Amino acid sequence: MRAKPSELIGKGGRGELALLDRIRQLANHPRSGRLRLGIGDDCALLRLKTGEELAITTDLSLEGRHFRSELHPPEAIGHRTLARGLSDIAAMGARPVAAFLSLGLPRQLTVARKGRSPWVDRFLSGFLALAEAYKTPLAGGDLAESPIAVADIVLLGALPQNKALLRSGARPGDRIFVTGTLGGSAAGLALLAGRGVRMPPAALRDQEPDERLMAHLWPRPRIAQGLWLRRHHAATAAIDLSDGLSTDLAHLCAESDVSAVIDAAALPLHPRATLAQALHGGEDYELLFTAWPNVAIPRRIAGVAFTEIGTIAKKRSGKPAVALIGEDGRRSALFPGGWQHFS
Amino acid sequence: MRAKPSELIGKGGRGELALLDRIRQLANHPRSGRLRLGIGDDCALLRLKTGEELAITTDLSLEGRHFRSELHPPEAIGHRTLARGLSDIAAMGARPVAAFLSLGLPRQLTVARKGRSPWVDRFLSGFLALAEAYKTPLAGGDLAESPIAVADIVLLGALPQNKALLRSGARPGDRIFVTGTLGGSAAGLALLAGRGVRMPPAALRDQEPDERLMAHLWPRPRIAQGLWLRRHHAATAAIDLSDGLSTDLAHLCAESDVSAVIDAAALPLHPRATLAQALHGGEDYELLFTAWPNVAIPRRIAGVAFTEIGTIAKKRSGKPAVALIGEDGRRSALFPGGWQHFS
Repeated sequence: MRAKPSELIGKGGRGELALLDRIRQLANHPRSGRLRLGIGDDCALLRLKTGEELAITTDLSLEGRHFRSELHPPEAIGHRTLARGLSDIAAMGARPVAAFLSLGLPRQLTVARKGRSPWVDRFLSGFLALAEAYKTPLAGGDLAESPIAVADIVLLGALPQNKALLRSGARPGDRIFVTGTLGGSAAGLALLAGRGVRMPPAALRDQEPDERLMAHLWPRPRIAQGLWLRRHHAATAAIDLSDGLSTDLAHLCAESDVSAVIDAAALPLHPRATLAQALHGGEDYELLFTAWPNVAIPRRIAGVAFTEIGTIAKKRSGKPAVALIGEDGRRSALFPGGWQHFS
Repeated sequence: MRAKPSELIGKGGRGELALLDRIRQLANHPRSGRLRLGIGDDCALLRLKTGEELAITTDLSLEGRHFRSELHPPEAIGHRTLARGLSDIAAMGARPVAAFLSLGLPRQLTVARKGRSPWVDRFLSGFLALAEAYKTPLAGGDLAESPIAVADIVLLGALPQNKALLRSGARPGDRIFVTGTLGGSAAGLALLAGRGVRMPPAALRDQEPDERLMAHLWPRPRIAQGLWLRRHHAATAAIDLSDGLSTDLAHLCAESDVSAVIDAAALPLHPRATLAQALHGGEDYELLFTAWPNVAIPRRIAGVAFTEIGTIAKKRSGKPAVALIGEDGRRSALFPGGWQHFS
């Protein structure tokens, strides 16, 4: 694997330096604002405005775990990789200022095949389109050859000091809300994986948006909604729905030392989703937040609905943190049913 | 892979939440100084002092590429994972303030075997020992089950605005220096891999430091030396030696738009290293820097030698950026011979 100089200088070869140069060009952005120095040195450099602090998150995406090359278009994998990080930034009420991407790729994903662009170019195309839409420069990262595709996303966001929306601020009596709809990602994945409706694989793999797959393939992180909640001091706690409502609400309850009751009839189900998908599906990348009992929460912000789904209660020792009131009015424990590794 | 509640609550199970809780305990640190919020929310929160900026770097380490489980003790893999990031921070002249770690692991690395601690515990032990020595809290990250071991390290460092040691600042006439010795990591790896001296595998795998393997297994990032250079305005440019002198000096020349001449007789070879290992070996994690012609550079800082190895010259179009004066006095082109992926 030692590079010979001839391999570094063109000949159509896509060595690490060649790929890095290409990413550097694609990610090109003015050295202005908070990001002072991007790709090309040992580190990137970032500056904050007076009175700001930084929110930082990392999310690891792996072939076979978080995406499947035979199901997901590379552009959607790039989009979803960045969306995972942006969603965490949204859940703090922060504004994204820079992204870093560590990519481990099998060699064949870096070369063109059958007249199509290399997988990595299509991945970057999806990644950078979302980065541009969310004004988030790709400021650095790392590249390595790997037996499986691996993408670790790092997101940095800025917000005023002491104003972050934490998981730990919920108090008994607070109302529980979610943005958007629930279960759409799981419903889309079921369709993609052929467990739902039969359709030609070509149509599923095509980059053209399919309305039934939008929530799964092209989630829109709720940055504007997080910023609104933080600026209006409307939320007492927030978390993003990445692992599923049942799991993420349990996280919020654990960090806030409270319990929660949610109402199945109130859940804003995605039109194609089942109740189980809405409760446990994960990857919806909506915000789950709690609000003061007497604060007015608008019906929607920037076109995205806010829906009240339950209330926060005192912690009940020895009992599950989350209870669900079913459509029959009966109350039952809601166990975390979302995705968990090593379990 | 859906977690049942019984698996989340003890019984010796090591689900993701259990492992995360364990890391959170191990990484426990006061919420003070620049790091305001660590592991446990959607993001960590970091605050800078007035007039500071942030240096950020990520480095991806993969089983089979950057380490080999059959050769490297898990503690050393943890140490080296963090050292890679700290070394980039050192090369900017910054002080580390927080680390983030994304870990993808095969399930068997998270469970105890044959009476030994789980691999991941030993990895974290090496990682956190270096983190403590360098006052760098583990502030967040991600966990996932993976077919191969993957570790992406993110390092954040702080430094005064506009004072970073960049790769792009070298000018013709500047002198070229390195810290420490060169080639020791490659020499140690050759020994480990059995290409050098034969020795019992048990001795090589043991955690007890072996002097011959120190440079490879337990590199010490040059934070103190980078801080000295930045504070004394002594360096015009700097880079860390991760890919090998020939490759990293070529990077520095490319970013500074200059060429370089180095003197083989002046290179501070590690006692066990060959000239080829010193030139191309990589993973030494020493600093390579350039200094004004008339600035005094001390012989050592914090016990680590500074050695002058050559000079910066004007760029010569169409010619290789780096020339080597051999021990016979003859000058030849030095091509980048360090590690490169996808080549």
